[in-house]
Amino acid sequence: MAQHIEQGGRRPANDGPKAAARNRAALVAAAREVFAEHGLEAPLSAIARRAGVGQGVLYRHFPDRSTAVAAVLEENVRQIEQAAEDQNATFDAVLGVLTWHLAESAAFIGLLHADRAGARPGIRAHAHALSERVERALRTHLPHGHRLSAQDNLALSVAMVSAAVTGPTREEREHRALAAWRLLGIEVGPVRAFGP
Amino acid sequence: MAQHIEQGGRRPANDGPKAAARNRAALVAAAREVFAEHGLEAPLSAIARRAGVGQGVLYRHFPDRSTAVAAVLEENVRQIEQAAEDQNATFDAVLGVLTWHLAESAAFIGLLHADRAGARPGIRAHAHALSERVERALRTHLPHGHRLSAQDNLALSVAMVSAAVTGPTREEREHRALAAWRLLGIEVGPVRAFGP
Repeated sequence: MAQHIEQGGRRPANDGPKAAARNRAALVAAAREVFAEHGLEAPLSAIARRAGVGQGVLYRHFPDRSTAVAAVLEENVRQIEQAAEDQNATFDAVLGVLTWHLAESAAFIGLLHADRAGARPGIRAHAHALSERVERALRTHLPHGHRLSAQDNLALSVAMVSAAVTGPTREEREHRALAAWRLLGIEVGPVRAFGP
Repeated sequence: MAQHIEQGGRRPANDGPKAAARNRAALVAAAREVFAEHGLEAPLSAIARRAGVGQGVLYRHFPDRSTAVAAVLEENVRQIEQAAEDQNATFDAVLGVLTWHLAESAAFIGLLHADRAGARPGIRAHAHALSERVERALRTHLPHGHRLSAQDNLALSVAMVSAAVTGPTREEREHRALAAWRLLGIEVGPVRAFGP
């Protein structure tokens, strides 16, 4: 197994599995931030720069834009699933993690709206599958008799809140997401990323 | 003033102002329907066919796609304004007309979401101006102390409901729009176009 060696702050090109995993995590976080700030058409080089890796490392992990977007989406959805799997999970807490990702990730918002006319069928199918994972994670903790448990109300409310999340800054987007949940009369736990 | 003459169901090419206005109204209605059914990338020839006019008449009124979209949007917004100007107007009634246009017009939905990262600045500015006209029309009849009168709640709720309006059929879109208003606890009058 190749040993990881720091070289002037840059990861070496032949980094081992641990460094590769670390690079990948840094790239996903950087992609999430860059897409949120500059939209999904932001230059990929900005992602490498933000993550502190070279172009070669970037392209090894994300050969094209769609791979980068897919990786961000997978992280968004996976964290919400992990929040739901947590032993102390509550519906409010999972909603708080969902809301963090709504405010952080332009790709995630796009995903939750890919369901409409205009999106390509392949993207729509993928978006649908990821949306279902989000809904399933939330539904696990939906209290019995909650007003969102009826019919399609859960999916509907997530789509409605994600539509409200616009604005140039993270703070503004979070503020609008919380205002939207409040309009729906839904309590939300602390807005935070899920992590150990 | 040129006289309008029917020629085998087709309008003559040199139709007078009355026929031109009638053609235009038919083209706008056809464009609204075609865009709703096939998305904003639908072939313009389908609009001419639906309106029962020739390609020449189509291009005289809509030289390109963006003119057609703009005309549909202007009709959407104008009808909501007219509903608000009606002497018997109530907030519920204006919401009913808004909801009809949400269910009918893919362009209108797109407009209400053009506010997010990704839309070109020119489109965003135009979308913003039209959204403000919709909000102003609604605000005229907002009852004192209504929960939507606080802060940005009115614009927020319109954005949230319009996000809920997806689905392949008009009925499904209307059903989802009404479910969204219900989730927000807002009463909506009859869902209908505004007309004499």
